Amino acid sequence: MINTQYPSKLLQHAVEVLSDLPGIGQRTALRLALHILRQDEDRVKDFGQAIIDLKTKVKYCKKCHNISDEDLCSICADTTRDHSTICVVQNVQDVMAIENTQQYRGIYHVLGGIISPIDGIGPADLEIQSLIDRVSTEQVSEVILALSPTTEGETTNFFITRKLSPYDVKISTIARGVSIGEELEYTDEITLGRAIVNRVETPRN
Amino acid sequence: MINTQYPSKLLQHAVEVLSDLPGIGQRTALRLALHILRQDEDRVKDFGQAIIDLKTKVKYCKKCHNISDEDLCSICADTTRDHSTICVVQNVQDVMAIENTQQYRGIYHVLGGIISPIDGIGPADLEIQSLIDRVSTEQVSEVILALSPTTEGETTNFFITRKLSPYDVKISTIARGVSIGEELEYTDEITLGRAIVNRVETPRN
Repeated sequence: MINTQYPSKLLQHAVEVLSDLPGIGQRTALRLALHILRQDEDRVKDFGQAIIDLKTKVKYCKKCHNISDEDLCSICADTTRDHSTICVVQNVQDVMAIENTQQYRGIYHVLGGIISPIDGIGPADLEIQSLIDRVSTEQVSEVILALSPTTEGETTNFFITRKLSPYDVKISTIARGVSIGEELEYTDEITLGRAIVNRVETPRN
Repeated sequence: MINTQYPSKLLQHAVEVLSDLPGIGQRTALRLALHILRQDEDRVKDFGQAIIDLKTKVKYCKKCHNISDEDLCSICADTTRDHSTICVVQNVQDVMAIENTQQYRGIYHVLGGIISPIDGIGPADLEIQSLIDRVSTEQVSEVILALSPTTEGETTNFFITRKLSPYDVKISTIARGVSIGEELEYTDEITLGRAIVNRVETPRN
């Protein structure tokens, strides 16, 4: 399908923009474009406009940098939440993943990425200074680092921990260990080793 | 992710429209939406507009019903092609597939589907009458039926063949048989049986 002759420039352009999406090849893009052609005109207009509006109208919370429709996101605006605990995450998906657990009542700070020299992403490209500013001006008692347990995540954790060291704030990292439901046999060595070293004492009744 | 709380209605709506696309679930749609958010504004506007333009501006060739930017598609408008041979196909993808073989120099007729009582698609829903009209008014010497070798395809072939019987036109069906490069061992019984019955004599030198 590489040298495909499209019967229409409009179709060709639609296939081009659709195949720019990650994980969507030319053949799938053509299938999607022809699916779109079969939809009602109103529905297709709504589709195109929803994409344009997403980019042009969405805001980022001025406090935690999460995606938001308002200047302050619904989590930061929620006065019933614990504003003294800030959970630091890489991106919006991670906020949604933690919110889905329904186990966290504090607020967030979205870095917008992690330190990755290979990708040319340094601390200045991330919302790290704004996190320091929050800790120094707001009533923050704990910063929870909830980054992925990768080299980049650990580097970012280390950098943030050092930057926060002058401040009187508790810093914690989400627990790493064997996943619930995972077979020990298939757990990788590093995770299993860490899980043994960082074992938790079982309370005696 | 079913009861996901989105941080933004704009994001939620974009995820909804994206996950309406076939084969794209909610999780993939979210990934696509966040990818779109990271693109340049001009690029996203172009994306949305390309989708809207596809639906609102595309035309269908008044002769063969293929997708087209003009009233007459580029194939029907090409005077160097053999206008006396019409290849009947189910949809636009099939035109593109046959064009890609570079083995066909005639023109097409796009039915827009095949007869499928289960899906409520009858002959009147397809461009069959317009095919009869073409055969009765244009200088057509051969109609090639290039529909999928399924029950629906065979039914449609049968219906068209009967409708064309009053006209002095050769009707042919694309060859069915073992695919090039396919192992006989893995060819299904019906295809293999047909391939033996419809064997082609090898020319002797």
